[in-house]
Amino acid sequence: MSAAVSPLAPKRYPEMPVVGGARIATAEAGIKYKGRKDLMVMVFDEGTEVAGVFTRSRCPSAPVEFCRRNLPGGRARILVVNSGNANAFTGRKGRDATAITAEAAAKAVGAGEGEVFLASTGVIGEPLAAGSFAHLLGDLVERAAPDSWEEAAHAIMTTDTYPKFVTATARLGGAEVVINGIAKGAGMIAPDMATMLSFVATDAPIAAPVLQELLSRGTAKTFNAVTVDSDTSTSDTLMLFATAKAAARGAPWITDAKDPALAPFRRALGQVLKKLALQVVRDGEGARKQVEVTVTGAKSARSAKRIALSIANSPLVKTAIAGEDANWGRVVMAVGKAGEPAERDLLAIWFGDIRVAHEGERDPDYSEEQASAYMKRDEIAIRVDLGIGRGKATVWTCDLTKEYVAINGDYRS
Amino acid sequence: MSAAVSPLAPKRYPEMPVVGGARIATAEAGIKYKGRKDLMVMVFDEGTEVAGVFTRSRCPSAPVEFCRRNLPGGRARILVVNSGNANAFTGRKGRDATAITAEAAAKAVGAGEGEVFLASTGVIGEPLAAGSFAHLLGDLVERAAPDSWEEAAHAIMTTDTYPKFVTATARLGGAEVVINGIAKGAGMIAPDMATMLSFVATDAPIAAPVLQELLSRGTAKTFNAVTVDSDTSTSDTLMLFATAKAAARGAPWITDAKDPALAPFRRALGQVLKKLALQVVRDGEGARKQVEVTVTGAKSARSAKRIALSIANSPLVKTAIAGEDANWGRVVMAVGKAGEPAERDLLAIWFGDIRVAHEGERDPDYSEEQASAYMKRDEIAIRVDLGIGRGKATVWTCDLTKEYVAINGDYRS
Repeated sequence: MSAAVSPLAPKRYPEMPVVGGARIATAEAGIKYKGRKDLMVMVFDEGTEVAGVFTRSRCPSAPVEFCRRNLPGGRARILVVNSGNANAFTGRKGRDATAITAEAAAKAVGAGEGEVFLASTGVIGEPLAAGSFAHLLGDLVERAAPDSWEEAAHAIMTTDTYPKFVTATARLGGAEVVINGIAKGAGMIAPDMATMLSFVATDAPIAAPVLQELLSRGTAKTFNAVTVDSDTSTSDTLMLFATAKAAARGAPWITDAKDPALAPFRRALGQVLKKLALQVVRDGEGARKQVEVTVTGAKSARSAKRIALSIANSPLVKTAIAGEDANWGRVVMAVGKAGEPAERDLLAIWFGDIRVAHEGERDPDYSEEQASAYMKRDEIAIRVDLGIGRGKATVWTCDLTKEYVAINGDYRS
Repeated sequence: MSAAVSPLAPKRYPEMPVVGGARIATAEAGIKYKGRKDLMVMVFDEGTEVAGVFTRSRCPSAPVEFCRRNLPGGRARILVVNSGNANAFTGRKGRDATAITAEAAAKAVGAGEGEVFLASTGVIGEPLAAGSFAHLLGDLVERAAPDSWEEAAHAIMTTDTYPKFVTATARLGGAEVVINGIAKGAGMIAPDMATMLSFVATDAPIAAPVLQELLSRGTAKTFNAVTVDSDTSTSDTLMLFATAKAAARGAPWITDAKDPALAPFRRALGQVLKKLALQVVRDGEGARKQVEVTVTGAKSARSAKRIALSIANSPLVKTAIAGEDANWGRVVMAVGKAGEPAERDLLAIWFGDIRVAHEGERDPDYSEEQASAYMKRDEIAIRVDLGIGRGKATVWTCDLTKEYVAINGDYRS
């Protein structure tokens, strides 16, 4: 594990307000490490609606399968998250561990197991001894408190070098509602850990199908537009809980995703998801620079995103950025290998506001000195215009440094 | 550039025989560096047949476009290769440079420009001053000699830490024919250089359409089954020349790809291509280990290859191997993210002969000690059985080390 905090860590953190109807507690369960919080529960009042999006891996973890089964019910009373062990690729033992945890969690809140949600992050392939922490859940539920968001963000960290939490408010009808979110990440999968987990809660009264629509759409331009190393975890989980407590303050119940009253909430949720996703990228293993890649003029938005991801995932682009080298030739290479429609002689490329390539060749005004100066920043923006259509997309990544290799080459030892 | 020769360099090199009808010369043209050979010509007698396969990049270099135009003619008299500048993403200037070179080359051998083939490797986006070396071609053609294969392999090197050349013989009808090949690589694209170039010549009398079939099929399990960093060059070029000189020794003219007399030649060519491809992988930037990834039991061969490449290209798998960490959890992750049919609970994984996972969980006999000892080798074999079909594929890669980042993060400075 990297001891130093990422140079891209937030300079300031928000005060986290309470989300009515949601309470949090954490504990040191000793799942893998001693002297470190590794268990978190979030308890929700009755009537809390839930939505979720999960890894597309064909080999998902046991908790991901568990959550997928419960999601259609649309209701949540408790979320249990452990770090230190991902409970992934653990076969029948994995299912047994989720069953033990779910039973204890349901009992602790007095709800059905269909209203329990679980997430685990950590090493893959080691059986998770759920028995070693299931007995703690009753006490955790009892002492859960509404003001423990920052503590929750700490408890789910693994290789993260800083906690990730964000808050926002939005008007919903005549009331103001709160949206709080926490996340963890680092590599897309990793160490005795890493994987992307994020949990967002609001007091807005929004029905589960609408929440699901909001979350699925909100993810496309946020969590699904960030990449650290192109590797997809077996455990990636993003959940959104709505306690509906703001109904008492006059917020209307939202049961239709097309309800115009939803617009401010949708924007605020998008902001929360984007900030959390960027905090994950900025804490990418070994990251020293945040990189924003925008592709315009593509045949379609889908094509633009594929090309943007090809650039953002290219080891040669990412190492050049680590080396503060304005190597736009590698950007051309990454456009070319994406397999999407592109016309070499129409390509233009910018680093920040500096146009480095134009009509398929080096910009006539290209200045190596100017471009190199730009590359010293800690936030780099690359833009590619393909000149063949109107599709556009933006994705975010970080640079690829020797520290990434060190962190991932050494972690199990 | 890395000064040290890769620890995976060949322990022994072959004596390169003559290929009748092919002659070689090299020169220091000073295209980018001084005191280093950077220009190579291969001259072929009249009647030489040719085939080629090129990068799939949507932004190919000017020489790749030039070769593609000439290939349907099926005849070659001269190949001109320069290093130091890729003549890629150079727009109209790039086409001008190929035109100048082709004209001078055609004149030097007294042939049409349709029988000229070109390749360039080096930095992208810098105009190539073809005028600075085109005048050298006449002299090069004059002093070309049949025994300069090793010299040729040296002249096309860029970030390569060792030259790559291979030879084989095969029976064709009643005669023995020779196959010589040279290659360069390192990153899939790279530095003031790198890209994969390979040129193979034989004295077998084989018609161009048959050569093309042999080369295209031969590539699938060799050059198209190796990956250093998943990045595809704008300039990758593999060409096969057949001078037909062995016809004088009784080798039959082959004009049908199904001719049974072709079997030994096909095998020998496959061996040459595989050896060259592996030499490229073993000289991957920063490589310390060769990694063979075999996937069996997939739904189809195509699906098996995609999964194998997902594993071979995963930064987390590659850094684990660099760290000599038997981290099979990352292999599971890479299987899962490939998006191909897979059943987690049927997966089995081997490192060498050690089965580390079975039926979707850690093998009951798993020994960390035994697996860790295996990872210390410099050739690592990973096998994954999916248990759902009969598709299989093997690909090769290298580990991802801090040196890779150093080489690619620093090169332009």
